[in-house]
Amino acid sequence: MHLFYQPGVELPRANLPGMELPCMDLPPAGWPDRVLHLTEDDSRHAMKTLRLKPGDPIAVTDGRGNRHSAIITPSTGKLTTFRITDTRTTPPRPFSIRICVAPTKSPDRIEWFVEKAVEIGIERISFFYGKHSERRVLKLERIEKIAVAAMKQSLQSWLPRFDDAVPFTELLQTISEPQRFIAHLPANESPVNLSKVAAPGGSYVVLIGPEGDFSENELKQALDTDFRMATLGPTRLRTETAALSACHILNFINF
Amino acid sequence: MHLFYQPGVELPRANLPGMELPCMDLPPAGWPDRVLHLTEDDSRHAMKTLRLKPGDPIAVTDGRGNRHSAIITPSTGKLTTFRITDTRTTPPRPFSIRICVAPTKSPDRIEWFVEKAVEIGIERISFFYGKHSERRVLKLERIEKIAVAAMKQSLQSWLPRFDDAVPFTELLQTISEPQRFIAHLPANESPVNLSKVAAPGGSYVVLIGPEGDFSENELKQALDTDFRMATLGPTRLRTETAALSACHILNFINF
Repeated sequence: MHLFYQPGVELPRANLPGMELPCMDLPPAGWPDRVLHLTEDDSRHAMKTLRLKPGDPIAVTDGRGNRHSAIITPSTGKLTTFRITDTRTTPPRPFSIRICVAPTKSPDRIEWFVEKAVEIGIERISFFYGKHSERRVLKLERIEKIAVAAMKQSLQSWLPRFDDAVPFTELLQTISEPQRFIAHLPANESPVNLSKVAAPGGSYVVLIGPEGDFSENELKQALDTDFRMATLGPTRLRTETAALSACHILNFINF
Repeated sequence: MHLFYQPGVELPRANLPGMELPCMDLPPAGWPDRVLHLTEDDSRHAMKTLRLKPGDPIAVTDGRGNRHSAIITPSTGKLTTFRITDTRTTPPRPFSIRICVAPTKSPDRIEWFVEKAVEIGIERISFFYGKHSERRVLKLERIEKIAVAAMKQSLQSWLPRFDDAVPFTELLQTISEPQRFIAHLPANESPVNLSKVAAPGGSYVVLIGPEGDFSENELKQALDTDFRMATLGPTRLRTETAALSACHILNFINF
């Protein structure tokens, strides 16, 4: 189990994701003797940057909904050891957002999208490449690091799931969400905004095409797989902006 | 009058900002003999990168709602000259969004916000610095360049207005918008989301604090100037993410 260090600030209840749900406080029974350690990066950060000492309180999360209060314990090695004193579990949100997006020509644009989507709230990000994709690979490890940093920074305790880039057809085989949308402007009918067709409290998936857009065939495949065309606003958006807008709109209708 | 070159693609009506409003087509009377030229940057881009020749059609916008169809004319100098053949004017949107935000420690975060806000739609961005601001200056010229690029890229013809960073108290004296919000978590009352308190079709202004947040006194000043506290979602957002979320929510309730 990975544990990610979080600044030990106390979290205003109102800032907790899933704030409308009861926050279960697990009994600390069994914990006191359990000793764990931070990752190497987090240990360096805690010791060198924040100059934390044994006895100092920290907060850690496993990225699976558990946020632990802990105390740094004396350790001889490079890794910061700590003892968990209390655990607060945040249940998953009553809805889930999955965005499937094609990597952008410049990687920083997708990395930026990941940071912002995690801050705002997202359950899963799947990458794919299509006929018109100029980039087919991306550094998933780097992207996960960015996501962890954003999760900690926004005081959340759920880390989204990431799927490495696969061909569009392969991606479609992984779709299980009932509410399916593809960000595309219909040729004939007048466009419908995502906010008007997505129902609150659902499990959503949205397809965002590459800079070169979807091919006719890809669009047909999506529609055959029960995806519905939706727009994200009146202006033409870049790939990463469209991806974040979709994430934002779906969060928004569930506020 | 500045004219910004736009790719000559024909703009799907549905993509026009203010699409619900009638698009006035100005008569080309008087235009045919008028010869204008692109900026030096745009001339280089049109000639060197896109290899456009005299007789090629281009589109230009003045950033004030006018989008001109034009033909490149022969020219001896470094600047690309063109003749306007037709003008389409997009009226301002039936609502207006002004975001007042403190510059972030790393300038690229604010620059990123500006690019995205322009893509999504915004009328005015005002910068300010408060008691807890670590940065008090920013490169407004660079920010305006990013805004122009985003306006052209998203096929819009309105460029937002920018105000250089001033102290918070000075900023408050420039507020005329009736719908005023400050992104802040109330200490006692339960938080209200911006989407729940902002009314559609209005003229909005939102204050987004620096990384160090507003000081108690600044918060008081804002409330005394009829600003209302509002949240932007259940998670803790970075300054630039909060600024974009506010912009997004206000666009959203007007879709």
